Amino acid sequence: MVVLATSVQVTAARAAREAYRAGHATPTSGIAAGLTQANLIAVPADWAFETLLYAQRNPKPCPVLEVIEPGQVESVLAPGSDIRTDIGRYRIWRDGELTSETTDATAAWEEHPDLVAFLIGCSFTFETGLVDAGIPIRHQELGRNVPMYRTNIDCTPAGRLRGEMVVSMRPIPAGRVADAVQISGRTPAVHGAPVHIGDPASLGVADLSRPDFGDAPEMREGEIPVFWACGVTPQAAIMASKPPFAVTHAPGYMFITDVPDAEYIV
Amino acid sequence: MVVLATSVQVTAARAAREAYRAGHATPTSGIAAGLTQANLIAVPADWAFETLLYAQRNPKPCPVLEVIEPGQVESVLAPGSDIRTDIGRYRIWRDGELTSETTDATAAWEEHPDLVAFLIGCSFTFETGLVDAGIPIRHQELGRNVPMYRTNIDCTPAGRLRGEMVVSMRPIPAGRVADAVQISGRTPAVHGAPVHIGDPASLGVADLSRPDFGDAPEMREGEIPVFWACGVTPQAAIMASKPPFAVTHAPGYMFITDVPDAEYIV
Repeated sequence: MVVLATSVQVTAARAAREAYRAGHATPTSGIAAGLTQANLIAVPADWAFETLLYAQRNPKPCPVLEVIEPGQVESVLAPGSDIRTDIGRYRIWRDGELTSETTDATAAWEEHPDLVAFLIGCSFTFETGLVDAGIPIRHQELGRNVPMYRTNIDCTPAGRLRGEMVVSMRPIPAGRVADAVQISGRTPAVHGAPVHIGDPASLGVADLSRPDFGDAPEMREGEIPVFWACGVTPQAAIMASKPPFAVTHAPGYMFITDVPDAEYIV
Repeated sequence: MVVLATSVQVTAARAAREAYRAGHATPTSGIAAGLTQANLIAVPADWAFETLLYAQRNPKPCPVLEVIEPGQVESVLAPGSDIRTDIGRYRIWRDGELTSETTDATAAWEEHPDLVAFLIGCSFTFETGLVDAGIPIRHQELGRNVPMYRTNIDCTPAGRLRGEMVVSMRPIPAGRVADAVQISGRTPAVHGAPVHIGDPASLGVADLSRPDFGDAPEMREGEIPVFWACGVTPQAAIMASKPPFAVTHAPGYMFITDVPDAEYIV
């Protein structure tokens, strides 16, 4: 059973989706606060089982919130939505190569009417809990996109799909790291507790100031880099596994649902 | 990454699997205590995506712990195991009808070499936490199978799969019900918090003393019937949806893994 937000909250979500549908494109961090945002990966039906299995085997980076079947374009998490248009910026992938970005993926669905769309949980959901607990979220404060990094952690393969884990990073004051672990750990459906705390090098991240996706972070005195599994991981799987066609969101440009973040707290 | 138990615990699990492989058949409640047990549903490859999607859409009754692909018979949760033989009692289903029970499902896999096996979390996992907290588990005390009931709650369909939710029931002293909710709620990967507390009638259960699966319960003064989503739910989906072929465990006769229950606590 899907629990939707109050009408006031939903008004903000709907307004955001309508703006994106009209072609507006900005990162969604902090938009429609308190409502769950989601990553998108859509693949041809022939790849759907392996994609769902890849998610089941790698639940920290790929927690599935919803699967939208072929012929459907409305998310049950956002009544009235259209998955082809309601994300600010899409990426189109062919044979594992990013071939274009667009603000409207309708043509992609016309080209591949059998696309199966997966909505994957986003770490923005537990950011609400961190902010509520007085833990600062640097990229929100700076109005930037969260920094994301490819790592040396291999995901568990599923059929033709394989790839490394992508992580997001937040600088957390050393005295609040344990709190951040516990708060995010209560949302296992949206990446849960961190996968790595401190020491970027052992994660295969050579230079924090050069993220693979999103914007560079600003680390301050006394802060520890804390890494969470990230819903951009399926895009790394696309690059490594080269399905003939795929559509994703652009990192940081999420799908906004009508579901309160609190729904995903254990 | 799969975390396995210590060698002492694993010895008990392996001994149990070897006994079942040799044809021994008893319910597994209380066997290899502290190790995770799992429900089984195996379907032809053509039904695998819908089965995994049904589980994704109904995570409380159908939390997937592992998917064993065609051609594989060993569970990564139990190295050295054989999913065709290591459960005490199997059920064979044809067109939605239970046609036979057996202690060895090798012939089923020979008949359908493309079977995909799903291991689904079991409420026995959080029973460990309840017992540790001093909450009595009646069916364990009595050496009986847990009572299970078909309900009037419809699961969310997925393709050709539909069916009602099956629940397990434990009588809990009224003063411990809240504790039981919180303890089981910390294991969302194995059914999590109850779906219903008290009032069997509104769940469509007319008579607690006549469960659809397992043994009759013994309710005592001051106890409330507490209902958890149950991993027998896929068997109800088989009955309602009539796939041409399926193999499941017999209710209460679970697959014993080498994974500590604690692995599934949030």
